[in-house]
Amino acid sequence: MLDFTEHNLTDAVVDRFGACENPRLKQIVQAITRHAHAFVKEVELTQEEWVEAIDFLTKTGHMCDDRRQEFILLSDVFGVSMLVDAINHRMPEGTTETTVLGPFYLGEHKLTANGATLVSEEEGDPIFIEGTIKAPSGSPIVDAVIDMWHTDAEGLYDAQKPELHGAPKMRAQFKSDAQGRFWFKSVVPSSYPIPNDGPVGKLLDATKRHYMRPAHIHFHISAPGYETLVTHVFLAGDPWLESDAVFGVKKSLIADLTKSNASHYPDNTPAPKSWDLLHYDFGLKPAKNS
Amino acid sequence: MLDFTEHNLTDAVVDRFGACENPRLKQIVQAITRHAHAFVKEVELTQEEWVEAIDFLTKTGHMCDDRRQEFILLSDVFGVSMLVDAINHRMPEGTTETTVLGPFYLGEHKLTANGATLVSEEEGDPIFIEGTIKAPSGSPIVDAVIDMWHTDAEGLYDAQKPELHGAPKMRAQFKSDAQGRFWFKSVVPSSYPIPNDGPVGKLLDATKRHYMRPAHIHFHISAPGYETLVTHVFLAGDPWLESDAVFGVKKSLIADLTKSNASHYPDNTPAPKSWDLLHYDFGLKPAKNS
Repeated sequence: MLDFTEHNLTDAVVDRFGACENPRLKQIVQAITRHAHAFVKEVELTQEEWVEAIDFLTKTGHMCDDRRQEFILLSDVFGVSMLVDAINHRMPEGTTETTVLGPFYLGEHKLTANGATLVSEEEGDPIFIEGTIKAPSGSPIVDAVIDMWHTDAEGLYDAQKPELHGAPKMRAQFKSDAQGRFWFKSVVPSSYPIPNDGPVGKLLDATKRHYMRPAHIHFHISAPGYETLVTHVFLAGDPWLESDAVFGVKKSLIADLTKSNASHYPDNTPAPKSWDLLHYDFGLKPAKNS
Repeated sequence: MLDFTEHNLTDAVVDRFGACENPRLKQIVQAITRHAHAFVKEVELTQEEWVEAIDFLTKTGHMCDDRRQEFILLSDVFGVSMLVDAINHRMPEGTTETTVLGPFYLGEHKLTANGATLVSEEEGDPIFIEGTIKAPSGSPIVDAVIDMWHTDAEGLYDAQKPELHGAPKMRAQFKSDAQGRFWFKSVVPSSYPIPNDGPVGKLLDATKRHYMRPAHIHFHISAPGYETLVTHVFLAGDPWLESDAVFGVKKSLIADLTKSNASHYPDNTPAPKSWDLLHYDFGLKPAKNS
């Protein structure tokens, strides 16, 4: 059978993958083949558009390095990251909803004592962030490992600030105490544009989409016997909550900031004249095999 | 509407692209969204598989440079390149069928006189390659520009041979003469594995697919008033014709090699003791707007 046409080529490629011995890999590559071919046929992709697509993917790859993940961004703006998240996290009662990891998780955060000040109050609006890690039953989880990262008041992550020379800032790891609690001091993060100097930014320009994400704090929380929770806590009132560029917002993840003039933070350390309190409790889902 | 689920997220992303002012771009990005989401839902892609996919695409991007195009290779092995080709080249009677460009076209070949010897006869089996460029009516096309490239007897393109330091070999540009003809001398190319030291090679390994392409000569032929023809001429008898790794073979593109012991080539220059003749006539399709 040598004369492949638009009518028999898809089956030929699917057949060619038939010898794959890993049934899951076989299922995936055969499905990619069918869906990619269906796309090409539906839009009748031209040769010039195919060349543009190859060029776009190549530039996206060249944009990726240790501190920038343009393919995750691409997955994010097409809602693919959130869809994968939705499919894999049908969450039971009492557990926190998940959202995208995002391209700025660097892993291996530095273990930091509860109560630490991550950013000095001169660099933005002071905020006290606290929460409890719980099982679905409501009982506290002790020694949960909480990786947290957020932007500064200008909307930049530490990884986007070359003057930090790779030092972590607004990024730390905490452990929950005997009551399942963690707490720290920082500054209120800002809504921000996703990185838009690469191929993904050009695509959003060309399709008249904005780059903005509403202000949020990333959490990556793990504890033995529980599924790792990857989520954000969004700040109520942000103007971009309804149109997050990466479709990451869920109602249950929005938390209010409470203004305070109290002279001391909840951990009894001295507070500045005016500060915000953010409190959010997280529910972890028990792991399947535990 | 803030609670995106696997059931409403696809429509939300499609809607978000609704403001795109370029109707063709809008059609393409909305179709990508629907087909990508349909794929993720069909296979219920896990978070770990998504991470692997991001990593695969990143490595594929990092493999691309001036002399290597791993995304074209990826498109090729999934039959996407041939499908785009098939959709865009519904060819009329009297015209040559098209096939993939492949990752080794470097463009801007050096104009070379007809009859030139591209590779010395010590480096392989000598071959005399000739053909005519014709309109569908059969009348010759004069001054057609014929870019040609093929592998050496070991199956390597010049771009894969660092010892050439970028100098072209088995790669040249000819112009058709007053009778529409071109001709040159070279060595018989070999079947060969597609580059398999990158992500695409690993994918073929994992899915138990072989890397081989049957021996062929690439042609990229242009002439004013005609569509540019991108095709190969395959050598009859090659063991890989039925299972080309990139699905590029079409029956009409297979040519016989004719063994000869004649003392002179068809252009009356002295020939070695034994040589092959390959003759192939190309029919160009008139351009739409000419």
